[in-house]
Amino acid sequence: MDVKIPKATARRLPLYYRCLVGLQSEGVERVSSTELSQALQIDSASIRRDFSYFGALGKRGYGYDVPKLLSFFKQLLNQDQLENVALVGVGNMGRALLNYNFKRTNNIRISCAFDVDETITNRIVSGIPIYEIGDLEKQIQDQEISIAILAVPAAVAQKTAEKLYEAGIRGIMNFTPTRLQLPAEVKLQNVDLATELQTLIYFLNN
Amino acid sequence: MDVKIPKATARRLPLYYRCLVGLQSEGVERVSSTELSQALQIDSASIRRDFSYFGALGKRGYGYDVPKLLSFFKQLLNQDQLENVALVGVGNMGRALLNYNFKRTNNIRISCAFDVDETITNRIVSGIPIYEIGDLEKQIQDQEISIAILAVPAAVAQKTAEKLYEAGIRGIMNFTPTRLQLPAEVKLQNVDLATELQTLIYFLNN
Repeated sequence: MDVKIPKATARRLPLYYRCLVGLQSEGVERVSSTELSQALQIDSASIRRDFSYFGALGKRGYGYDVPKLLSFFKQLLNQDQLENVALVGVGNMGRALLNYNFKRTNNIRISCAFDVDETITNRIVSGIPIYEIGDLEKQIQDQEISIAILAVPAAVAQKTAEKLYEAGIRGIMNFTPTRLQLPAEVKLQNVDLATELQTLIYFLNN
Repeated sequence: MDVKIPKATARRLPLYYRCLVGLQSEGVERVSSTELSQALQIDSASIRRDFSYFGALGKRGYGYDVPKLLSFFKQLLNQDQLENVALVGVGNMGRALLNYNFKRTNNIRISCAFDVDETITNRIVSGIPIYEIGDLEKQIQDQEISIAILAVPAAVAQKTAEKLYEAGIRGIMNFTPTRLQLPAEVKLQNVDLATELQTLIYFLNN
């Protein structure tokens, strides 16, 4: 599909998908933008605008057909195909991510992890093999992985990210507080927990 | 300070603050919006616009005075005062959060955690006391905490969030995939890892 959509819309697509999976499993056959709005806490005008980028998905006065809409989003988000991702850094956060069930809501799986700590490498933890960092390039290429989760200490974040780029990674979910400097073709998603919490505090105080 | 600023600007304030802490520690005395832009990977027009909401923070052709700007943001973000937050749910993710150093970049500390698992309650883990869930209201009120991190299983997320609201919590950082339904006065920050990763995959494929 070759539709140019705003970043904010793209961010909401997985939420729509997940909500529709829930509705489908409850046997709901059609849904209005108002009902979607209540379930997702996104205003219904935004929902209608988001959907309008993809043409006529619903009918005025009828709403949206759940199975049809679900199958549309499933294809759009490529949910038929399992997406394997790599995890780099198996510290406290990395270990929590190994146990995080990405498959429950989305068709994503951590298929390999990497660390420098020899007491955990070459072992299987929570069902996932932990490789030495020296195996990174080979595994990423063998497994044709293009997305990595970065959960290493901040001091080695930039260096590790460059290694990932050289190995062929083009999307990084960055759990470190480091602002990574990488070629523009690499898509970055920063999950900066202290900043998120600080923003929440700011909103609460102001 | 009583300035009405856009949400996107508010989200960037902690990033500015952290960057300035770094510059100050390196002995940098002044900085241009272009230099900030490179360090933060935020375009310099946005930076100048963000700063303009707070009046004349810099001088044309000179840039920004680092110590002055830092002290301004420090006050704005209330960084002089330690902010205590509660953690609810000490599973894999909760445990990682207990070990996450929020104090390194921001003046935030988890001062108490809560769980239902009797094998870990009434103990101190990573320096933080883990209380039974029955102690939640008393501790939150005694410690005058208004912000909580929610890391419980999805099935009990809504129920637990309501308990938090009744105990006086007005800001929740939500690590569960549940879209919480709470009174409008409660500020929510969703950290939905599967959705973040799915969005990254979508951007990479399109």
